[in-house]
Order: sequence, then C-alpha cells, then structure tokens
Amino acid sequence: MKRVLILGSTGTIGCNTLQVIERFPELFAVVGLSAYQNVERLAQQARTFQPDYVGIRADQHEELKNRLGRDFQGKVCDADRDLADLCSLDEIDIVVIGMSGGAALEPFLAAVKSGKIVAPANKEALVMAGEILMAEAQKSGAVIIPVDSEQSAIFQCLIGQRREDLKQVYLTASGGPLKDIAAKRFDDLTVDEILAHPRWTMGPKITVDSATMMNKGFEVIEAQRLFALCADQIKVLIHPEAIVHSLVGFCDGSVIAQLGITDMRIPIQYALTYPQRLSSALPDLDLTQIGRLHFESPDEQKFPALRLAFEVAHRGGTLPAVLNAADEVAVDAFLNHQIRFSRIYGIVETVVQRHQCQDVGNDLGCVWEADRWARQMAAEEIRKLQS
Amino acid sequence: MKRVLILGSTGTIGCNTLQVIERFPELFAVVGLSAYQNVERLAQQARTFQPDYVGIRADQHEELKNRLGRDFQGKVCDADRDLADLCSLDEIDIVVIGMSGGAALEPFLAAVKSGKIVAPANKEALVMAGEILMAEAQKSGAVIIPVDSEQSAIFQCLIGQRREDLKQVYLTASGGPLKDIAAKRFDDLTVDEILAHPRWTMGPKITVDSATMMNKGFEVIEAQRLFALCADQIKVLIHPEAIVHSLVGFCDGSVIAQLGITDMRIPIQYALTYPQRLSSALPDLDLTQIGRLHFESPDEQKFPALRLAFEVAHRGGTLPAVLNAADEVAVDAFLNHQIRFSRIYGIVETVVQRHQCQDVGNDLGCVWEADRWARQMAAEEIRKLQS
Repeated sequence: MKRVLILGSTGTIGCNTLQVIERFPELFAVVGLSAYQNVERLAQQARTFQPDYVGIRADQHEELKNRLGRDFQGKVCDADRDLADLCSLDEIDIVVIGMSGGAALEPFLAAVKSGKIVAPANKEALVMAGEILMAEAQKSGAVIIPVDSEQSAIFQCLIGQRREDLKQVYLTASGGPLKDIAAKRFDDLTVDEILAHPRWTMGPKITVDSATMMNKGFEVIEAQRLFALCADQIKVLIHPEAIVHSLVGFCDGSVIAQLGITDMRIPIQYALTYPQRLSSALPDLDLTQIGRLHFESPDEQKFPALRLAFEVAHRGGTLPAVLNAADEVAVDAFLNHQIRFSRIYGIVETVVQRHQCQDVGNDLGCVWEADRWARQMAAEEIRKLQS
Repeated sequence: MKRVLILGSTGTIGCNTLQVIERFPELFAVVGLSAYQNVERLAQQARTFQPDYVGIRADQHEELKNRLGRDFQGKVCDADRDLADLCSLDEIDIVVIGMSGGAALEPFLAAVKSGKIVAPANKEALVMAGEILMAEAQKSGAVIIPVDSEQSAIFQCLIGQRREDLKQVYLTASGGPLKDIAAKRFDDLTVDEILAHPRWTMGPKITVDSATMMNKGFEVIEAQRLFALCADQIKVLIHPEAIVHSLVGFCDGSVIAQLGITDMRIPIQYALTYPQRLSSALPDLDLTQIGRLHFESPDEQKFPALRLAFEVAHRGGTLPAVLNAADEVAVDAFLNHQIRFSRIYGIVETVVQRHQCQDVGNDLGCVWEADRWARQMAAEEIRKLQS
C-alpha cells in the first residue's frame, strides 16, 4: 500500500490523481490532501478519501471544518505554512505536487530531502531551483517521476537505457494557440482570444504561456534539470497532434519515443505505480485513426520566448528564477489588461538581460532574492509602458 | 573484445556487419566468416579481417584457397556441413546470422544451445522452429538480439520494461511495392515489375514476399516467437515512411516506439554492442525534414497472405514451417515464370489448409518433415496449374 499526499488536490492534476487512486483502492491510501481555496471540493474529497491531513488557507479553516462535520477524524492544516512539514512525514510515500506557482518550492524540497517519491506537475519549482532539488534528491535517494506528459515521456524513454548513451531529447509541443496566426496580428490579440486554446482547457497563466511558447521554454529548463542535460541537448519539435509526447535520441542513431492518447491520467498513474504499469481502462491509442503525425521546427522569430528560454537554460544560475518571475508578472499584467499581448516578451527579455546572473549552489535564499528582484524590475517595466 | 562469427558474410547483412566492426577494431575480432557462393568477396573479407575460420561450399574450397594465398592462417570450412560446429566454438561470443533460408536453422540452434549472443537477420529459422530456438535459449542463457529493424525496435522498446505489462506489439510495414496498385492489376504483374521495389534493394525472394506481404506475415510469426506473444497481441501498421520501426503498447495506455533513419547498420550495431550503444556516425533522424508520418491499417482483402500468416501464428505447431516452405516453392515458381504472381497465394493457402498440424515440442525432425511435406504439396499444386 502506497501512502499518498496530494498538494493542489482540487486542481486538474489533483482531481485526476484521485480518479486514478479510486481505481486501485487496494494499492493506495490518501494520507493528505491540500488545496488553496476551493474549500467545497476539498471537503468533498476529504469525505470520500478520509485523509489524516487536510490543508487549506488559514482563513478557510472554519469553513472547511463546518463542511467536514464532527465525524471527520483528520487534522486540518495551514496550506501556507504546513505543507513542507506534511511532505516530510514518515507516513507518506508519494507526494503529488499538483499546485502551481513558486509556493510549491518549499514543500517540493522537503519531500525531496526526506527521500519520498515525488510526482511533480508543478513547473515553477523545477525552473527556479531545479539544481538544488536534483542535488538533494541525489543525496536522499528521492525519486522524482514527472507527471507532465512531455517529461514523463522522456522519463519513460530513458528506462533501461544507459544514461551516457543519451544524445538528444526532442521535446514536443503542440505549437500553442497562435501557431497558425500571423505574428503581425499579435498586437491586437485580446485576453479572450488568447484564452480560447484549441486543445486543452488550462488555467489562464499557462494558456498565455502556451501562446508565447514560454511554457515550452520552461519545459526545456525543467527537462534540463530533471535529466541533467546541456541546453543544446534539447530540441523542441512542433507536433500538433500531441500524440508523441517526447522522444530521446541515442548516440547510435536510435530514437525512442513515448506515445499515447492525450489523457493526463496515463502519466499520473505511471508516476504512482512506477516501476509497475497497471491497466488504465483508457482507450488504446489508434494510430490508424489518427492517420498522420506532423513534425516541424518551431518558429523562433515568431516565438522569441523559446529562444530566450534556451539562452537562460544555457546560462543557468539565478536566471531561470528571473525568467519565471518576470514572466509571471508580465502575464499577470496582460491578463489584467494593463499591457498588450505583444509586450509580454519585451518585458521578460529586458528583465532577463539586465540580471546579474549568479551561481545558485544550494542556496535557496539566492533563488528567492532573484525572484523578488525580477518581480520588482518587471513591475517597473510595466509602469514605464503605462506612463 | 567480443569475438564474432558471421554466417552469410558476403550478403547485405554480412557486409554491413563488417562495416560496423571496422569502426570499432578495439571492440570486435572477426573469428569466422562464411558465405554460400561469393568466393571473391569472401576472400577479400578474409584478407582484411584475418578470421580463424572461413566457410564456403566444398566445391569452392580450391578457388578460395587460391584467392587467399599461402600466407592465410585461417582454416577453410564447409559451409554446408561445418556451420553448426563453428557456432558452438568456445572462442566465439556473437553469431550474426545473415544467411537466408532454412539452412540457417541448424547453426542457429547450435549457437543457441552453446549460449552465444545470437544476432539473427534470418527469418526462416525463427518461423520454422522459433519455439524450439527460444526454449533452448532459455535453457542455455543464450541472448537473441534480432537484427531485423522491426524486431530490433520491439526488443529496444521492451528494454527496462516489465514483460507482464506488455499489451500489444505494433509491427510497422512500408506496405510493399503493391501498396498503391489495384488488386485487379495483380494478375498482369511481371517478375520485373515486382522486383522494382520502391524503397529497398533486396533479394528476389524477399521482394516478392514484400509484394504479397507474406514477408510481414513471417515477421508476425517471428515477433510472436522472439517476444513470446499471442498472435492477437500483434497488429500490423502500414507506415510508408518506415521511420517508426515498430511500437509496443503497455497495459496503462502508454506506447513506446523506436525510430531511426532506415540504415540497417543501426540495428546491427545495437545487436553487437548491446547493452551498450556506441556512436554510429550516421546522420541524426530529422523529423522536421520528414514532416509527416502516416499510419493506416493493412488491406487484408488485397493482401490475404497477412491474414493467413496470422491464422498460422495462431495455430502454431508445424504450420509456420509449412507456410514458410510452401511460400518458398510458390515464389520460386513465380520467379521462374512458371506461375502468375496472383497464383502464389492460392498455392500457399491450399498447402496450409491441407496440413495436419502437429505440435513441435522440441523435435526438429517434425519441423523438417513438415517442411518436406509442404514443398512436395506446393510442387504438386504448381504442376496442376501448369497442366
């Protein structure tokens, strides 16, 4: 029986994780659930799975307790303060990190330091402090099994292969909602147009990042950390069908790919059951029905964010944290109608270029300092544009 | 240093194997070379690689010795009688079986029984007596690493995976030279038209088998044996670009594929260096240049040989040997202008349907008896058509 803690249990990753767990009641016990604000859904989940710990923001503790009722045996925790402690509990085997944002960094690190199996869907923590997280995992023996379909694909392609034979990783990308829209139209794009992503319903921040392809840029940095790659060992491949989730090229010319229908329960389940695979009861991939798989190079003129992310990946240090923070501030300004879509990139680039990059070592303080600095700089750039 | 014996060294597989070996003189020593009739090329190879053993048909021993000259230190062997003994020699680590036909069966079995690494490109032995070969490999600890690109792909996709998680194998097929030719034209197809295969230059027998898709049918049986599959765990996928060499589907819905440029040196090198991979110095696969990969279901109305092979795979026993023998006789008759192309299938089907299928157990005699019977029956069918 594997004992699971889910951070961000009311989000898409969290809900899908619980769906997977529900299919295998004899294999998994939900020990903890935590959410940021969806107290109603969290209470429902807690009543169903009866975890020992339920986390939510302190100002919603009363509300949660009322909804759970007197019979509920678990402990209510503070989602702002207690997550790192929860992640360190001996009674937990797997931590699924479904929450988004830099707030996941401290709990992620705690889970890694205490040698857990960590299944991250969160990008920010790995982008900001991937070096530290991976170094700590090495020390503690923690196993990080990514839940993101592209990173899970790379993980699966590397199973049983000798690490030193790896030559190249091909990270696939659907191309985002603006793939077939001319760059000259970017200036006029509204928030609503951007949020109408053709394929997946995702949160607004990640949808905007898909539109600029910064999201894929973050995945480049994430892959670099997860699999200890040089930036130039990673290539982005535009693959609109999103069936090939990523590929790994080896020194002998052989390429291994992982494919599947686009259902995040497959990589989530893989992370939970690894090294086993269990029947998913999902429909088989039918390549004859899909018929064609397309591949093309990304247009880095049109999507300079990707090029910038590669530069950041190459230089490393505090720069990935700066990229992440500046992007968050700029995207937020766009979503709040403060700046145009086409301005996002310029702001992020200016902040990145102005940053005095430092080595991170194992100093999380230095990462947070870069994060704070970048947010301030980005806010200033936005103010300049508005004045 | 791995010590290599190559059976069929003057054929395409043999020559490509020597090209691979030439790139890594510190890793491989060629201990033996054997060919059927190309004495000139064999002598060249022997002078270059200085093997301890050189095999050719007895009636060409004199010719070979003359070409090798007095300085040659190796022993000249009889390719009809000595191959099984050669395969059993302690001083050999890897046996590459590049020779075609049922004649490879005895040496293959000897190599397996003596626990070698066996790299077969030969289809007939595995089709005829795959059960026996695999059972003996299990006993002796021999490792069979197929060299055929599809089987190598499956082998590679299974690396590091739990065998019990395997659900389905997708064997890819270019579709053969007749993919886009209407079935009603099949009656008029000449030997020359069939031999003009659009993609690969291969021997005449295998080119005709590609045209009927019997070749893919044999690969179904081969995969069934190599990977201990049920016939219904194998699906054939038409994939004209021949970039995805095959795929394996797992119970969780995840599919692993092996891709690469179409150069047989990749799977040959893999078999030689397994579990390592070494740099191949071949161009990288560039999916953006290829652009599209197509997949479709095979047309079993048009290519009934595939359906017949699945039936044979399902029933097993002596039937695969019968299928192999009847096909060889029928294709030979076509190549000798004795029958029309469209008659090949009918002859093979009649022989297969008339066969009293028997279990093989570990009785090679029973396989040879079925082979002999099928050849006789097929010859009779051909005579009937001519009279």
